[in-house]
Amino acid sequence: MPDPVETNPSLYNVVFENERVRVLEYRDQPGDRTTPHSHPDSVMVTMSTFDRRLSVGDQVREVSLESGAAAWLPAQTHAGENIGTSETHVMFVELKEPGQASGEAALGPQSA
Amino acid sequence: MPDPVETNPSLYNVVFENERVRVLEYRDQPGDRTTPHSHPDSVMVTMSTFDRRLSVGDQVREVSLESGAAAWLPAQTHAGENIGTSETHVMFVELKEPGQASGEAALGPQSA
Repeated sequence: MPDPVETNPSLYNVVFENERVRVLEYRDQPGDRTTPHSHPDSVMVTMSTFDRRLSVGDQVREVSLESGAAAWLPAQTHAGENIGTSETHVMFVELKEPGQASGEAALGPQSA
Repeated sequence: MPDPVETNPSLYNVVFENERVRVLEYRDQPGDRTTPHSHPDSVMVTMSTFDRRLSVGDQVREVSLESGAAAWLPAQTHAGENIGTSETHVMFVELKEPGQASGEAALGPQSA
């Protein structure tokens, strides 16, 4: 379960942490890629409008989100690539408490 | 424990909800006020830069936050007023699971 703060420290920053949550800020530029990493159950709040390609193993999914959206990211491992023309800027509110395992999570955020 | 979605439905909207979290979007204009309402333990993500006055009983606190910040709001009851010259736009990620009671929470978000 590689922590993205360790695998991509130039893209992910811890902006807040206590016993219940950790908040990560992610910022990249078009063409930037992340290496495979894991997220716990998290809420994503988008601070920019962006287009990304997420992948894990043979699964690939393209995701486009508008700025100012909130989406649920079920616990998962993936890698990402900024395939758009704008920066990606997202806040991840990670839940530290163990959730009810929901089986195989779909790749990427759940559609609103 | 009045729910702000019920007490100020023109200012608070539920933008996402599942069994672990509820995400509220708050938007107001200068001069707008909320009536007393309660928040569970929450992460605030600021989408605008704003100045507010929070109050509960005799306690009053003025809070200024920059856009793009994350702050912890411990469970509390308060009322708010936009005392600045810009809109307030905040996403609240409310934690549904009961946290460890931390006694009397300070008014407003915890300083970073």
